[in-house]
Amino acid sequence: VAIIDSKAPFAGANEFNLAPVVGKVTLKVCDIADKEVAPLVEGADYIFNLAGALNHTESMRNPLSDLHANCAAHVSFLELLRKSAPSARVLYAGTRGQYGAPKYLPVDESHPMRSTDANGINKIAGEAYHLLYAKHYDLHACSIRLSNTYGPRHVMTNPGQGVLNWFIRKNLDGEPIELFGGGGQKRDIHFVDDVVDAMLLALASPHTKGEAYNLGGEAMSLKAFAEAVVRLAGKGRVQVRAYPPSFKAVEIGDYQADYSKAEKTFGWKPATPLEEGLNRTLRYYEQYRSYYW
Amino acid sequence: VAIIDSKAPFAGANEFNLAPVVGKVTLKVCDIADKEVAPLVEGADYIFNLAGALNHTESMRNPLSDLHANCAAHVSFLELLRKSAPSARVLYAGTRGQYGAPKYLPVDESHPMRSTDANGINKIAGEAYHLLYAKHYDLHACSIRLSNTYGPRHVMTNPGQGVLNWFIRKNLDGEPIELFGGGGQKRDIHFVDDVVDAMLLALASPHTKGEAYNLGGEAMSLKAFAEAVVRLAGKGRVQVRAYPPSFKAVEIGDYQADYSKAEKTFGWKPATPLEEGLNRTLRYYEQYRSYYW
Repeated sequence: VAIIDSKAPFAGANEFNLAPVVGKVTLKVCDIADKEVAPLVEGADYIFNLAGALNHTESMRNPLSDLHANCAAHVSFLELLRKSAPSARVLYAGTRGQYGAPKYLPVDESHPMRSTDANGINKIAGEAYHLLYAKHYDLHACSIRLSNTYGPRHVMTNPGQGVLNWFIRKNLDGEPIELFGGGGQKRDIHFVDDVVDAMLLALASPHTKGEAYNLGGEAMSLKAFAEAVVRLAGKGRVQVRAYPPSFKAVEIGDYQADYSKAEKTFGWKPATPLEEGLNRTLRYYEQYRSYYW
Repeated sequence: VAIIDSKAPFAGANEFNLAPVVGKVTLKVCDIADKEVAPLVEGADYIFNLAGALNHTESMRNPLSDLHANCAAHVSFLELLRKSAPSARVLYAGTRGQYGAPKYLPVDESHPMRSTDANGINKIAGEAYHLLYAKHYDLHACSIRLSNTYGPRHVMTNPGQGVLNWFIRKNLDGEPIELFGGGGQKRDIHFVDDVVDAMLLALASPHTKGEAYNLGGEAMSLKAFAEAVVRLAGKGRVQVRAYPPSFKAVEIGDYQADYSKAEKTFGWKPATPLEEGLNRTLRYYEQYRSYYW
């Protein structure tokens, strides 16, 4: 097992997450477009390609940087894989951001993709390359499109890496959870362990080559999620704020995924109830806070 | 009026095409991502953004090069436009290649886009950036999706820049026109003057901001087009050949466009009958052959 991480600033790299496996896995600090990646992937059986940038507003400030991270680097990586790991099963982590503002709910995989930000455009292209290489080079590549994820071991130092975990940090810090525009917009919320299960099941299945699958979870408003954090933490409060313009511009309205294709193809559905996931997440960060902020 | 051309090898640059306007326009030889572009576009009223690469098989050999030409360079250019020419009307030249193999005919603009090659993926992204900048920065950008174009002033030195003009060259050279796999696949064929009209009408319309429009023409098989070339030239012949694998892999089957959105929005439809367009094209290259091959 080898882990490749560019340790990009503000992204998720955290050595504490790897402490349980130190000495058992190879860790390489580089970009997936770098040449040093080659010996690590040669003849690999499974590739979990989770590299990328995911900050929507930052992608509008630096679209070319996001384009490199989410598309060009993946094209380099796929060129390497088709030559040096042609039998590998490859999983790409797509995103609900590829769809843009939903035209109908729940959103299935054939919903048109018209992203509201540069990040979504680049993720569409990065995913399309994986599916193209499946068709053109017979590489067993597939994609799962994540919705909003929360849970342990996440980056907790900036809100652009995932709003749900940021809510949890604000609460644990004794600060109010800020809801832009009232927080009424619905999201499909899933716990990180369920996402990991989906990744394992998608790659274990022989039927996923060249296909993309929505993941889903519990559809609820950001306000309802924030209030659950307050309730289960037994402290704190939520606070409604006006939308900052940069957030308003990339806001998509309500989102809910149809994940029946994943369920039918590889038997996945979200298994962790919100209360259980949130309790585990709160306890985790209370215990290991010093490693995350 | 300023013309920016990178004069990329094997692409369309031909000084003879500009001979009628030498001294009346500025010609700058550089990439649209280069800094030297800035003074030329500052305060511009109309931008015909026709930069890009269009060779399907070459895009599979060098996807990163195609990604630069069709996406990264356009992101740089749009970043420049939104700052230094925010009132410009901008036209992007998209392609039917964005759709991939049609799921239904005729193909309208909401047909899913799943390209069969890297070129299509990158063109999807390049177009999406134009429509995003329209929405996000209020830039008046739109896209027209070209089908297969033929006519005078085209590059005639390699088949990857457009199969129709290549057929014409082969015929004028006294060689057989080669049809891969029988040539039964249908294409929507349009004459270059009609495409130019569409570009002018799309930019003259106040209703095109943030939208994409199919262009169409006469739906006919490549074989029928080739036979029309032979008939109107009064010489030569067609020859059926097996598909080379690299072409077979990116072949899309039949294509026919629904261009009613362009017709309704800015009053365009193809106006040049095949016979007229072909006669003008044959006469043009007979007369000016030495400038094109």
